[in-house]
Amino acid sequence: MPPPLSVSHPSPQPLSLLPRHARGPHPHSIALAQPLSSRAPPASACSVVPARHSDYFDPRAPPSQRDAYGQPPLERDPPVPGGQAGRVFASYSIYKGKAALAFDPRPPQFVPLESGAYKVAKEGFVLLQFAPAVGPRQYDWTRKQVFSLSVWEMGTLLTLGLTDSCEFFHDPFKGRSDEGKVRKVLKVEPTPDGNGRFFNLSVQNRLLNVDENIYIPITKGEYAVIVSTFNYIIPHIMGWSTFTNSIKPEESQPYNRPQSSPELEWRR
Amino acid sequence: MPPPLSVSHPSPQPLSLLPRHARGPHPHSIALAQPLSSRAPPASACSVVPARHSDYFDPRAPPSQRDAYGQPPLERDPPVPGGQAGRVFASYSIYKGKAALAFDPRPPQFVPLESGAYKVAKEGFVLLQFAPAVGPRQYDWTRKQVFSLSVWEMGTLLTLGLTDSCEFFHDPFKGRSDEGKVRKVLKVEPTPDGNGRFFNLSVQNRLLNVDENIYIPITKGEYAVIVSTFNYIIPHIMGWSTFTNSIKPEESQPYNRPQSSPELEWRR
Amino acid sequence: MPPPLSVSHPSPQPLSLLPRHARGPHPHSIALAQPLSSRAPPASACSVVPARHSDYFDPRAPPSQRDAYGQPPLERDPPVPGGQAGRVFASYSIYKGKAALAFDPRPPQFVPLESGAYKVAKEGFVLLQFAPAVGPRQYDWTRKQVFSLSVWEMGTLLTLGLTDSCEFFHDPFKGRSDEGKVRKVLKVEPTPDGNGRFFNLSVQNRLLNVDENIYIPITKGEYAVIVSTFNYIIPHIMGWSTFTNSIKPEESQPYNRPQSSPELEWRR
Amino acid sequence: MPPPLSVSHPSPQPLSLLPRHARGPHPHSIALAQPLSSRAPPASACSVVPARHSDYFDPRAPPSQRDAYGQPPLERDPPVPGGQAGRVFASYSIYKGKAALAFDPRPPQFVPLESGAYKVAKEGFVLLQFAPAVGPRQYDWTRKQVFSLSVWEMGTLLTLGLTDSCEFFHDPFKGRSDEGKVRKVLKVEPTPDGNGRFFNLSVQNRLLNVDENIYIPITKGEYAVIVSTFNYIIPHIMGWSTFTNSIKPEESQPYNRPQSSPELEWRR
Repeated sequence: MPPPLSVSHPSPQPLSLLPRHARGPHPHSIALAQPLSSRAPPASACSVVPARHSDYFDPRAPPSQRDAYGQPPLERDPPVPGGQAGRVFASYSIYKGKAALAFDPRPPQFVPLESGAYKVAKEGFVLLQFAPAVGPRQYDWTRKQVFSLSVWEMGTLLTLGLTDSCEFFHDPFKGRSDEGKVRKVLKVEPTPDGNGRFFNLSVQNRLLNVDENIYIPITKGEYAVIVSTFNYIIPHIMGWSTFTNSIKPEESQPYNRPQSSPELEWRR
Repeated sequence: MPPPLSVSHPSPQPLSLLPRHARGPHPHSIALAQPLSSRAPPASACSVVPARHSDYFDPRAPPSQRDAYGQPPLERDPPVPGGQAGRVFASYSIYKGKAALAFDPRPPQFVPLESGAYKVAKEGFVLLQFAPAVGPRQYDWTRKQVFSLSVWEMGTLLTLGLTDSCEFFHDPFKGRSDEGKVRKVLKVEPTPDGNGRFFNLSVQNRLLNVDENIYIPITKGEYAVIVSTFNYIIPHIMGWSTFTNSIKPEESQPYNRPQSSPELEWRR
Repeated sequence: MPPPLSVSHPSPQPLSLLPRHARGPHPHSIALAQPLSSRAPPASACSVVPARHSDYFDPRAPPSQRDAYGQPPLERDPPVPGGQAGRVFASYSIYKGKAALAFDPRPPQFVPLESGAYKVAKEGFVLLQFAPAVGPRQYDWTRKQVFSLSVWEMGTLLTLGLTDSCEFFHDPFKGRSDEGKVRKVLKVEPTPDGNGRFFNLSVQNRLLNVDENIYIPITKGEYAVIVSTFNYIIPHIMGWSTFTNSIKPEESQPYNRPQSSPELEWRR
Repeated sequence: MPPPLSVSHPSPQPLSLLPRHARGPHPHSIALAQPLSSRAPPASACSVVPARHSDYFDPRAPPSQRDAYGQPPLERDPPVPGGQAGRVFASYSIYKGKAALAFDPRPPQFVPLESGAYKVAKEGFVLLQFAPAVGPRQYDWTRKQVFSLSVWEMGTLLTLGLTDSCEFFHDPFKGRSDEGKVRKVLKVEPTPDGNGRFFNLSVQNRLLNVDENIYIPITKGEYAVIVSTFNYIIPHIMGWSTFTNSIKPEESQPYNRPQSSPELEWRR
């Protein structure tokens, strides 16, 4: 028997930016997916009737229904007026009947060098944010679970065949005193009809006494958007685009290495 | 029997930016495609003889023939001198014997935040504009029918196999009082020879008493250009490129989150 | 029988920017390819030993040998000091034993609108320049033949399977009084070993009494570079990148169309 | 019998930017890979458990272990304060149990023209830097071996099938007096389980009396990141992005060539 759909806090809560653990430990389990065997395969290879699909939340639907729960809140630093001038926040959000999933790119970090140049110190990543639905087209982002996808994991998803599965394990406290107390597993596996994927995040958090499991089905077209955005964002969150932005024809200089050095094979 | 080719207003009309319904209701049907069974398969896998192909309108042909009907009119705001300084309009237009199809990207919308940053409020899209031919290399853009392709639908077309079909349903008035009165269906399906696709837009508009159906064949090469431009434009109309443009090495800051927060798994 | 290798002007000539017909008509034929049947298939799937491959001209080889014939000359406007400030010329050149082939992207053309915005008036293209070899690593660019590849033709090459062939016909004087007097055919076809392609340009020019035919073999890796650069350049020479460059979060405006208009289906 | 794992200088050495030959000739051999036949195939198609994988060095691990050996040193010009203002260094590094491999893009070189424009004089490349491990998560970058991958070689890797192999030969002194004294071979070949690749660099340097061989396994996901970054970087290191950056709608000019010229086929 699949676990029944149970949401311990089904009543809408006000949006909050409080850290999750501030609400105190509360054991509950969310199992949002139907059992796989009970899903009927679709009739055609392209079952794309979003406007009528009960499992699909159209983000372009009347905004009155989305104000409270429609979009993931910005979870960065508290709003300091003028403090983030020029920054732009963008994400890719997929809304389904029982959960929403937002992909949120994060920039790399740079360190200045003595020479006046910069070096990439840490690669960026894409933060996956899963939120359970608490009503029609309403998602409780205060109860979200997150998973930060590294460049290497994004590469793995880029090459995932339609029938392949994939699992990533994260321990946010690895190498710290709380190592092993939080365990996150992201599974990406084919839907039974072979036309889409399930993204499944399970989080066992012994610090907060939480054991959650969130499923969301991703269609072939949505996965293609993920692939397109990952291919786009990978060179940027690796800092390669800041390297290419620094290519200036008017500042071009020949490589003046000693000829006897084997460092550079081609004398350029 | 396929519907006969009938164009109710074959005489050229002056270009107009008037909204379509200002011309009043006029029942007519346009069926622009030959029956599929009457098309002969091409001799080779690469039937690319555009200069001689009667079904192909070369946009580089003598401009005298294109002034009136060759290009889709800009349908945005009325021209206010200086009002759109710096904006650039670009589209991808495919001209065939019985119809033309233009792909016109539209930007996302942003909202300013208190912090001085911006957030993507609505994703952009690609507007498909179908216009019937009214003579050799002449297209009546005042009678165009449009379909706004969302990012998700673009993703679906990106992964469409050569033998796959696809249908998208739109109701422009969904959630409004006129819901159900306009129904648009975009079908993309393989040509019988397996080397191209038909793009077929049917529009049933009970408000204007219009029932139109426009077919246009798209070759493999043209579809590859669509795929290339979609892969390019998706991250831009999602606003991810404005995010990446805001990555500045000199403004890089470490993520300073409390260590006990499970929000970010990797301490960066 | 394949046409024999004959080069009518094997003696090096000084580089010249004179238009080709200024040298007067001179019937000659260049057939640069060996017969297909005489080529042995390589031993492995990846026969990549460029440094030893006699058919490969390394553009990083000692520059003394390249000054006269190594690079295609810039053929744009005569050098007016300061007249092209900020412009950058880039191409992708492939050098082989009997010919060289350069891919040279050309920008789109824009027209200003009354509103202060710009519109793409003509798509750009990629100019293919074929030059015959006149000695070891020497190519006579004054005798080059060119073929301007449209976006649509680039799309066709993007999807060309390893065993597919392709032909494009151009008449530079189509629609003019000299229509039919110059006929160009670009053929792209698999090499017998199935690992590469031949690019074959044949030009019949009755105005200059020229009948030329230039072959150049392109390896799988070189074709992958062509695919990568085409995917990159297509949105740029269509002007879509100037559209995306004009997306400014701080200038974002909502679409304010009348709600009854069927132009835009989704109220955004 | 495979060569045994032997590292002649296992003791950590201080980081140094001295040219390698300054340390004098020292014959040693490093063979870092296990014999292929002794590797067991993984259980599933997606064996991605990086946090537990002993062969995987997580670059996000505690930084205390990475200070000395974790990152490849910048090997460019000596740090002149302010001398490289605005430049950004980025690379893609893969850390494994016995070696690390860093991909480091290098810009093209430009020359100014009389007209005020610039021309690409030399394509850029991607420098591969292999460093042996000298302890857990410690790599000796002073003993690195490098291989500069050309655009054409990158294209070859882009199309390399999962079961294909590839070899590139470089002689850094080709055409010089020391030609033949240094021989580098980069092999890319499938892992026995078919899910990844080995990158194997062997260097025979008779000038330094060095004969080294470094293996590093690359997973499918890591290879996908390589493909994504190569596709991104190729147009940039070829200088095509500086060409596209120079496209300005406000500076657009029609092509004003004489009509009788066969240079440009389409009158634009």
